[in-house]
Amino acid sequence: MSEPFGTVGIVGTGLIGASLGLALRGRKAARRVVGVDLDPQARAVAHRIGAADEVSDDPGVLRDAEVVMVAVPPEAVADVTLEVAAVAPAGAVLCDVASVKSPIVRELDRRLPGRVRYIGGHPMAGSEARGPHHADAALLAGRPFVLTPTERTDPAAVAVMTDLVERVGMQPVLLSPEDHDALVAQVSHLPYLVAAALVAAASDRAAAIAGPAFEAFRRVAASPADLWVQICRANRQGIAQALRRFREELDLLEKAMAGDSLDAVLRRAQARAGGRREE
Amino acid sequence: MSEPFGTVGIVGTGLIGASLGLALRGRKAARRVVGVDLDPQARAVAHRIGAADEVSDDPGVLRDAEVVMVAVPPEAVADVTLEVAAVAPAGAVLCDVASVKSPIVRELDRRLPGRVRYIGGHPMAGSEARGPHHADAALLAGRPFVLTPTERTDPAAVAVMTDLVERVGMQPVLLSPEDHDALVAQVSHLPYLVAAALVAAASDRAAAIAGPAFEAFRRVAASPADLWVQICRANRQGIAQALRRFREELDLLEKAMAGDSLDAVLRRAQARAGGRREE
Repeated sequence: MSEPFGTVGIVGTGLIGASLGLALRGRKAARRVVGVDLDPQARAVAHRIGAADEVSDDPGVLRDAEVVMVAVPPEAVADVTLEVAAVAPAGAVLCDVASVKSPIVRELDRRLPGRVRYIGGHPMAGSEARGPHHADAALLAGRPFVLTPTERTDPAAVAVMTDLVERVGMQPVLLSPEDHDALVAQVSHLPYLVAAALVAAASDRAAAIAGPAFEAFRRVAASPADLWVQICRANRQGIAQALRRFREELDLLEKAMAGDSLDAVLRRAQARAGGRREE
Repeated sequence: MSEPFGTVGIVGTGLIGASLGLALRGRKAARRVVGVDLDPQARAVAHRIGAADEVSDDPGVLRDAEVVMVAVPPEAVADVTLEVAAVAPAGAVLCDVASVKSPIVRELDRRLPGRVRYIGGHPMAGSEARGPHHADAALLAGRPFVLTPTERTDPAAVAVMTDLVERVGMQPVLLSPEDHDALVAQVSHLPYLVAAALVAAASDRAAAIAGPAFEAFRRVAASPADLWVQICRANRQGIAQALRRFREELDLLEKAMAGDSLDAVLRRAQARAGGRREE
């Protein structure tokens, strides 16, 4: 590998931002990581756990950043990225980590000045926790990091981010913003909503004797509701489509249970899930 | 605590049977654990990992068992328990571990001879794996173990099984067989079916970039299909009821997403799931 990155900025030192900082520093992917957060506690924790070499509430510290990762909640990404663009050096690569890409990427393609280079991103990682004291480079290790270039994206910026993603130990995956939103609806947004519905539907007496499957769904449903509201609002269309497909499969299962094809339907699901027949 | 149990029999040395054997022996809850399985490999593995002091394909080895745990697939429980009753000593306590209780318990209440004492059981534990080489006492530790006495159950047998459950490190919970089936439909059977439907509904491209929430669903859906077919057939009514409630919650979420009450609905689900607002 060639030289590490110089200064990498992280704006928003929460769970994902601080985990990226830990990975960048732990793997010596950057000479210097600068964290920016308006919350003094988040800044202090990020600094203490070693997620950044220095932290500040002033975006001015990003003035010599080669790359800036904007790791703020979805509804804040566009405005914060525009603020970062105003202070970042010419040619800087800006990337975000929001779970919904199309509305954010299309807005930033339209509004960002040409002196910076933006590409949408989404690390497929996280947990139900939030905040930098839960940050862990292991959350990211080996996971896909989707990058969503458009016809407006500088190919050199794609190369820069692909390199950075690999250096933090993640797998770069290139998708259009629209493809990303349709696919992530199926494997992230809908699973969250389904877990929320399952947990809400279960009685207290049932929840009291829950086994490991329900516990797994409970962890998913315990994710921060305010973040999920933003995600669901921004990806209504993708979620509606995934929900239609899911309801079809659920209807199929219910019909199979009433008839005698349940065996075939469940074996197909097991095979898709990667389950082994015997072991 | 008083004296440990004398001989405890385990019929079916698969994942759950062998895990119970490991817990009984590891916690010195029984002086001797005897495993019975028709599959020579399952027997050999159970013996090698220390889940039983001796193993056999002959139920005759249960002739001096104080307690026998029948840990075979749901559709085999009634017949196997009747076979065990024919060889177990008078007064022996027999218990099973099937995920559905009402049909099994009502059949055995009718058919078992009075010389043995039966009580239905269901340890709320397990994993997507099967077979004794995945057995682990840690799968059981701290989990609920539902016991389902009926008007036919000897109260002394309830006391015996409550004692045994506590000695293997689990939490005894007493429910009627019908209550058990209604509650477990909500937190185990429906979650499995929902996971199977989610995994079946996701495209290959979507599954390739899946994050941790989908991985949790995938693990659940990878559970042995043949066991689940038996469970779903035996608890159709409980599952149908749980499915109705789930669909209502899902419809509510979809309506909330179209309107502006999503925040309140997701916060309620998060609170039910035990998620913290900030941390």
